Amino acid sequence: MTIKLDPWGAAIPESYARIMEEFGISSFEKILHSVPEPSPLMKRNVIFGHRDFGRVLDAIKKGEKFAAMTGLMPSGRMHIGHKLVIDQLIWYQNHKSDIFLCVADLEAYSARGISFEQSRKLAIEEYLANYQALGLDVERCHVYFQSTSSTVRHLAFLLSKRVNFSEMKAIYGFVGESSISHVFYPMIDIADILHPQLEEFGGPRPTVIPVGIDQDPHIRLARDVAARFQKEFKFILPSSTYQRLLPGLTGEKMSSSKPETAVFLTDSDEEIKKKLRNAFTGGLPTAAEQRKVGGDFTKCRIYELYVYHLIPDDEKLEEIRELCKSGKMICGECKTKAIELMRAYLVEHRAKYKRALPKVKKIVEKA
Amino acid sequence: MTIKLDPWGAAIPESYARIMEEFGISSFEKILHSVPEPSPLMKRNVIFGHRDFGRVLDAIKKGEKFAAMTGLMPSGRMHIGHKLVIDQLIWYQNHKSDIFLCVADLEAYSARGISFEQSRKLAIEEYLANYQALGLDVERCHVYFQSTSSTVRHLAFLLSKRVNFSEMKAIYGFVGESSISHVFYPMIDIADILHPQLEEFGGPRPTVIPVGIDQDPHIRLARDVAARFQKEFKFILPSSTYQRLLPGLTGEKMSSSKPETAVFLTDSDEEIKKKLRNAFTGGLPTAAEQRKVGGDFTKCRIYELYVYHLIPDDEKLEEIRELCKSGKMICGECKTKAIELMRAYLVEHRAKYKRALPKVKKIVEKA
Repeated sequence: MTIKLDPWGAAIPESYARIMEEFGISSFEKILHSVPEPSPLMKRNVIFGHRDFGRVLDAIKKGEKFAAMTGLMPSGRMHIGHKLVIDQLIWYQNHKSDIFLCVADLEAYSARGISFEQSRKLAIEEYLANYQALGLDVERCHVYFQSTSSTVRHLAFLLSKRVNFSEMKAIYGFVGESSISHVFYPMIDIADILHPQLEEFGGPRPTVIPVGIDQDPHIRLARDVAARFQKEFKFILPSSTYQRLLPGLTGEKMSSSKPETAVFLTDSDEEIKKKLRNAFTGGLPTAAEQRKVGGDFTKCRIYELYVYHLIPDDEKLEEIRELCKSGKMICGECKTKAIELMRAYLVEHRAKYKRALPKVKKIVEKA
Repeated sequence: MTIKLDPWGAAIPESYARIMEEFGISSFEKILHSVPEPSPLMKRNVIFGHRDFGRVLDAIKKGEKFAAMTGLMPSGRMHIGHKLVIDQLIWYQNHKSDIFLCVADLEAYSARGISFEQSRKLAIEEYLANYQALGLDVERCHVYFQSTSSTVRHLAFLLSKRVNFSEMKAIYGFVGESSISHVFYPMIDIADILHPQLEEFGGPRPTVIPVGIDQDPHIRLARDVAARFQKEFKFILPSSTYQRLLPGLTGEKMSSSKPETAVFLTDSDEEIKKKLRNAFTGGLPTAAEQRKVGGDFTKCRIYELYVYHLIPDDEKLEEIRELCKSGKMICGECKTKAIELMRAYLVEHRAKYKRALPKVKKIVEKA
C-alpha cells in the first residue's frame, strides 16, 4: 500500500515507523551517540528521523560551513508546537550554522489568500519577534520574504524546467481545478531549500531542514531536483530531520486555526489555565479509581508538554512519570503544576518578546 | 469541430475566416475607415483582424494615453517576417503610444534551453538594434528582460491564483511530461501583457498587442484573467490585432531555423540573390507558356514580399500585378526586380543598423 503524505493536509500519520521504512528515512536514535551535545529534543526522540544528517555532523565536527533553513507561513499565531523548530535552529546556530528564515508569504497568498502586507505584519509580530525572544539571534539569520526575493523566484523557474507535471501530481495530488499558483508553488519551496547553496549565498555546502514528516515530499523533491542540477549548481543533497508533531491539547493536531488545541506564545494567564484544564489526559473517570490504578501518561497531552518544552531535566521528568503511574499524583494536581510551569515560562517569554519586537522590526526593515 | 490553436506549433491556420468566426475575432477591414492615417499593412489587409481595437482608436482620436506591447523571443536571427510587428509598433509610436518591448528570455530558456547571457546578446544584436534601424525609437520604449523583471514574475504568480490547470491544459494541450516551467510560462506571458496597466507603469489604459493568429490563445487568456482581477487592478481588457503570417520563400512557414525560408535583415547580397531566385512563385513550367497565359500572383512568394514590404505604393503594386497576369513580365524578370529592391533596402538598412547598434547597447545597459 502506498501511503500518500500530504504537506497541506492535517492528518497525523498513523505509524511513523512504517513511513520511515517506506520512504527511506533513517532513525535518529541510531546516530544520537555521534551528536555532540545533543539537545533534549534529540535525546527524547522527539527528533526521531533524518536523511543524510551525517554530513551535517561532519561539518560541525570539522568546523566546516553548513546551513539550516526553515520557512514560516504567516497564517495565524505562533503556538508552542512551532517552538520545536526554533529550538532546533538555536541548536544549529550555537553550532555555527548559517540560518535561513523564509517568510512564505507567496504560500500564504496562494493557499490562504493572505495579502503581502498582512503577511509581513504577522511574520514580524507573531513569528520573528517570538524567535528572537526564544533565543534565536535573528540578526545573524538570513531573513527574506518569498514575494520580494527575486533570486528565489528566478531559481524556482530555472529548476522547474526539469520537473514535470506527472511527478508533481503524484506527490501533491493536483487535480484539474488546482490553480497554477498551487501547481507552481512547490517549486518555490524547492528553491527556498536550495538557494542557500547558490554562490551568492555561500555556495554548495551541507544544509539541514528540520521538518515534520508531513513535509517529507518537499524534501524528497528538493533532493531529486538538486541531483538533476548537479552540473549547473553543484548542489549537495540537502539533509533533513523529522520531529514528532506536538499533539494538540484536545487530541486533534495542534493548529493555529483551532485555538483550543494549542498554547500560543501570546496567550494570557487565563487562557493558559482554561486550555490546560480542558486538556486530554490519560486519567481515569474517578479520582479514587486513578489513585488506585494510576494514570496512563502515554496518552496524556500534559505529559507531552513536559517532554517537549516544560521539563528539560530528565530526572524530574522520570519523577513525574512515576507519580502518574503509581496514582500518587492525579490529573488535577498535575494540571495545576503544568499551568504553573507554563505561566512562569510565558511571563518570562512575554518580557523577552517585548524587548525583541522593536529589535526585530529594525532587522526586517533592512531585509 | 474545435480548432485548436497552438502558439508553439508551426502550422499555418487553413482558414482565417473560420477561426475568426469561431473565436470571435472582428474584421479589421470593417473598421479601416475609422483609422486615422492607416498604414499600408492595414490598407492591404495584412492586418486582417482585431479584438476591441475601437478603444485604441478612441484613445488616439482623443489624445488619451494608451500602450502597445510585444515580446521577442531571442532564439535566432530576425527575419523580414518579424519586421511586420515592428512596422506596427512604429505606427503606434507615431500615434503617441507607450511601447513595451519584452525580451522573452524565460521563454527562450524554458522552450529552447537558451542561456540568459546568450538571450541578452541575441536580443540586442539581432532584434533591438534592427528595431532601431527600422525606425522604432528604442530609447522611448520600455525595454525589459523577463528574467530580471521582478514585477512581471510577481504579477504572474498573483494572477496564476485564478487560473486552473484544466483551463491551461485545454488551451495549451499540456501532458504529464510537460515541465512545470512550461506549465507556468503562459502566466508570465499574461503578466507581460497586463503589467503596463499596473500603477507603476502608467496605470489602467487601452493596450494593444499585435500578434499572429497563432498567438490568440494567449490574448484570450490575458483578457479572461484581466476580467477576473478587475477588482484588484482595474485592468482594461487588452486589445489585439492579427496580422497574416508572411509565408516562407519556399512555401513553408517563414522560420529562423530554416534559413532558406526567410530573408534575414543581416543577409548578404549573395544570400538574398540565392534565396529569391529559389523562391516559390505562381509561374508556369515554361517561359513561353507563361508569356501566353500569364502568372498567378496569388500563389507567389515574391509578390507577397512586394505586398508586405518592398512596394508601399499601391499604384506600382497594381502595375506589377497586371504585368504578371498578362504574361508581360515572367518570373525571372520579376525576381531580378525583387532582388534589386531587397538589396537596395538592405544596403540602407545595414548602414542604419551600424549606427543603431552602439546606441541600443547603451540603452539596454540601463534597462
